[in-house]
Amino acid sequence: MAKKLTGIAASSGIAIAKAFRMEVPDLSFDDSQTDDPDQEIVKLDQALATSTEELEAIREKTLNDLGEEHAEIFSAHLLVLRDPELIDPIKQKISDDRSNAAKALSEVTDMFVSMFESMDNEYMQERAADIRDVSKRVLAHILGKPIVSLAEIQEEVILLADDLTPSDTAQLNKAFVLGFATDIGGRTSHSAIMARSMEIPAVVGTKSITESAEAGQTVIVDGLDGEVIVDPSDDELAAYRKKQEDFEAQKKEWAKLKNEPSVTKDGVQVELVANIGTPDDLEGVKNNGGEGVGLYRTEFLYMGRDELPTEEEQFEAYKKVVEEMGEHPVVIRTLDIGGDKELPYLDLPKEMNPFLGFRAIRLCLEKDDMFRVQLRALLRASAFGNLKIMFPMIATLEEFRQGKAMLEEEKAKLVADGVQVSDDLEVGIMVEIPSTAVMAPQFAKEVDFFSIGTNDLIQYTMAADRMNEQVSYLYQPYNPAILNLVKMVIDASHKEGKWTGMCGEMAGDEVAIPLLVGLGLDEFSMSATSILPARSQLSKLTKEQAKQTAEEALQMNTSEEVKALVTERFL
Amino acid sequence: MAKKLTGIAASSGIAIAKAFRMEVPDLSFDDSQTDDPDQEIVKLDQALATSTEELEAIREKTLNDLGEEHAEIFSAHLLVLRDPELIDPIKQKISDDRSNAAKALSEVTDMFVSMFESMDNEYMQERAADIRDVSKRVLAHILGKPIVSLAEIQEEVILLADDLTPSDTAQLNKAFVLGFATDIGGRTSHSAIMARSMEIPAVVGTKSITESAEAGQTVIVDGLDGEVIVDPSDDELAAYRKKQEDFEAQKKEWAKLKNEPSVTKDGVQVELVANIGTPDDLEGVKNNGGEGVGLYRTEFLYMGRDELPTEEEQFEAYKKVVEEMGEHPVVIRTLDIGGDKELPYLDLPKEMNPFLGFRAIRLCLEKDDMFRVQLRALLRASAFGNLKIMFPMIATLEEFRQGKAMLEEEKAKLVADGVQVSDDLEVGIMVEIPSTAVMAPQFAKEVDFFSIGTNDLIQYTMAADRMNEQVSYLYQPYNPAILNLVKMVIDASHKEGKWTGMCGEMAGDEVAIPLLVGLGLDEFSMSATSILPARSQLSKLTKEQAKQTAEEALQMNTSEEVKALVTERFL
Repeated sequence: MAKKLTGIAASSGIAIAKAFRMEVPDLSFDDSQTDDPDQEIVKLDQALATSTEELEAIREKTLNDLGEEHAEIFSAHLLVLRDPELIDPIKQKISDDRSNAAKALSEVTDMFVSMFESMDNEYMQERAADIRDVSKRVLAHILGKPIVSLAEIQEEVILLADDLTPSDTAQLNKAFVLGFATDIGGRTSHSAIMARSMEIPAVVGTKSITESAEAGQTVIVDGLDGEVIVDPSDDELAAYRKKQEDFEAQKKEWAKLKNEPSVTKDGVQVELVANIGTPDDLEGVKNNGGEGVGLYRTEFLYMGRDELPTEEEQFEAYKKVVEEMGEHPVVIRTLDIGGDKELPYLDLPKEMNPFLGFRAIRLCLEKDDMFRVQLRALLRASAFGNLKIMFPMIATLEEFRQGKAMLEEEKAKLVADGVQVSDDLEVGIMVEIPSTAVMAPQFAKEVDFFSIGTNDLIQYTMAADRMNEQVSYLYQPYNPAILNLVKMVIDASHKEGKWTGMCGEMAGDEVAIPLLVGLGLDEFSMSATSILPARSQLSKLTKEQAKQTAEEALQMNTSEEVKALVTERFL
Repeated sequence: MAKKLTGIAASSGIAIAKAFRMEVPDLSFDDSQTDDPDQEIVKLDQALATSTEELEAIREKTLNDLGEEHAEIFSAHLLVLRDPELIDPIKQKISDDRSNAAKALSEVTDMFVSMFESMDNEYMQERAADIRDVSKRVLAHILGKPIVSLAEIQEEVILLADDLTPSDTAQLNKAFVLGFATDIGGRTSHSAIMARSMEIPAVVGTKSITESAEAGQTVIVDGLDGEVIVDPSDDELAAYRKKQEDFEAQKKEWAKLKNEPSVTKDGVQVELVANIGTPDDLEGVKNNGGEGVGLYRTEFLYMGRDELPTEEEQFEAYKKVVEEMGEHPVVIRTLDIGGDKELPYLDLPKEMNPFLGFRAIRLCLEKDDMFRVQLRALLRASAFGNLKIMFPMIATLEEFRQGKAMLEEEKAKLVADGVQVSDDLEVGIMVEIPSTAVMAPQFAKEVDFFSIGTNDLIQYTMAADRMNEQVSYLYQPYNPAILNLVKMVIDASHKEGKWTGMCGEMAGDEVAIPLLVGLGLDEFSMSATSILPARSQLSKLTKEQAKQTAEEALQMNTSEEVKALVTERFL
């Protein structure tokens, strides 16, 4: 009898193959004391060295296959292996308490993990996850039970696991691992993000897939609808093979649109551009027919290191991106740190509500030495392509004016020094705070463009932390309140002859796209893999019909009503 | 030479008298071990018993002088003295380690204090402060150096202290302590709030008043402008005596307005009502000419106890308030717990951003057993006066509809049981989330009234936690974005023949009042002591002039511009 499990669609596509259950080695150990502490320390050092080698290889592979942004996590893991604050106490425990290496490692890392976990802060939670992942590897080596490398899978399978760590996922060979399904995890976990980059269909958070399937049983992973079918009937198999073919056919149709313009059926053109994190992401943008970069997040330049990046390092990164994109626009967002993204070396204060705290432009205007370095790097890079600058988290006109004044000051200094700088550089803002949406008519007189950051705008407008499961039902992109704010921003910009983009998840959402076209949005910035589907969707709708629908949606009562309306007319 | 210090105006009025410096007893102790642990345990128990007696007396006095809400804190302190999780480890330390009582107390309480302080959560911070305050008292008794009671001050003085704990403040006799000034503390600290209730002029956060004045020097506390003058010249003394007289004269003028209507110079009438926390606050409402209650916060019924209040307890409290207010309206807000207000017995999850979390109506709709008890108590009380029900933190129409449906269900059950219930009970919502302000036209068709909660509305609209000092500059009541949202709400309600009130701090703010009159606000709910000054201000302005000013303010660029405009025309 077939079993159907529901989970979270983490990476699109359909995969069908035999189940392969990830083996979790037995890492139990005895807690006897040792007579030879020196020997245990040698054992520990060997395990650390082997783990370092393995992780360096994984890091290298990830860098080549998936790029810098994904490799980042293993740099963090390698730092853990070298961290004297973690390693020294383990060695001390061995010498002082005569603990064996396994026990000492386990006790010390458990202590750090529970300390970090109790800190109630996402950055620390991630550090806890890193230590857990790394220490499992070291422990396995101490016990002589090396973790089975998933890279060794040599037949076509669907991988089933309780959870996949980033180091597990990075090793998957997509020629053999056709898809995976896990018991836990969410759409924004590291493994889910990596799966999307690797284009491996995946469903996470099924709660019980590891209990529901035997090794060797046929399994279907439906990463489009978030379902996993174990031991399907012949009819089901046929239906899913059809769904798989349809999806592949659709992907081929999308691919044909790669070099086509982004126009509606009635000839209205918009811009479909991509969100990127590092220069490595540009390949994906080009492969997916992106017409530019609508959001270059500069945080990665600042992360996973011990000190601020220099002006030169930043200049090189920005220059590389604008040069590679040629005439296409590249909107670079200045540093958006704080909130859930911390930089340990900045030593920021702990906050009770980090999402409502000292972050992004608020922090940059105060730490203006740091900010001016970034502005100079951006100004210098502006001579090499079509660069635009965007300030994040602007809440008041004074903040924009202050940031703009700093930029003008740095520009004047560079020009005085004979450095070349673009002379028609556009400076815009993210609209992600409700006050700024409401004040759009006033802002539109002073900024060159708006880019609506819906992830935060929705969160603040609904007063609901979207990371908090208990209130995630309030993360409602189609709520008429959000649509009305979006309309205010677009209308205000057009009145002053400016343009409005959107760089939140909503810009690539098939329910939102007809509404946004109807409201007159000029630029849609999304993850590269969403561009072709969006272009295809655009080519099938008319601006007229979209406008009519948007006007009705603005008057509606609830998000559900809006969703039903769009679904009926466009999907 | 006179010295002038600037601090935070914590309680209004001018006080002039000799300085009295609060004595901090030397609570150092030796850390020698004891030969007689049993004797040390007896010493501890005696100190606990004496402290309990003292705190019960302070609690009683506070209850009589200031009411239940202020007495609450001492109930919390008494719980600390009885808490086995705190007391048992102290005793164990005495028996196991042979620590003396002072050392054992001090080590255990320090550990709890630093644990709670590290928790980065306001509720825990307060528990840390409670333990610090209480353990100082117990330690003083163990050392035989009882804390000098401030109740014993028998001459007119200005009290100077590094900080005042709530238990210090509660003991002040306002016949002798004419004013106080402290080095640390903020406007919303417990001591500042108590000073306002006691009408003792106070300036807090001067940083160095205890170092700047000698006992016996003349000191002026200017609680209007947040200044402290030490050793004033004769001219200064004369000037401040004049300021003091003017303030007293103004208070007398205000007092004359107690039974007058709240009307503008050109005859437009509004409602000036009060925010209350417990039935005890009603006396202050009546003394200050309040025309009703615009916000009865029901949280206090749920706090400082081990379990939920029963329907009967709640019914009695609500009935008391509506009966005492007679025909005047009493708007009761359903439970607004979560965020910075936790109930330990509900065992709510820890949240990364509690202000954007699972609180108020979100929690009540899920824990509907608890919510229905409150709704029944409110419905039963509605038969005894002019009661209106208000739901907090409404973000979507669905939430309002769900809450309203639960209310209707409970009403039907009560009616079926023959219980009397008001049949024209108004049900409204707080507008404190931006989405709800934007959706006001849709909401206005279904709710009976709006009450704008500006404290939260400003915080979410500007995406800035107002408790966070680094971003408190963004708490801008006069920002045109806020004024535009307020206008949307008022206009939407009037279009449907409904009314709009406001129950945030902004409603009693002299800069905001002309703008709010101009925008057409119907009901202003504020702390009782602000009502008479507001009525006086209203009587001196015209609606016409206010309307003109509000229209200009809506178009302005910044909060500063709006403030300057209102100040120039009205203040």
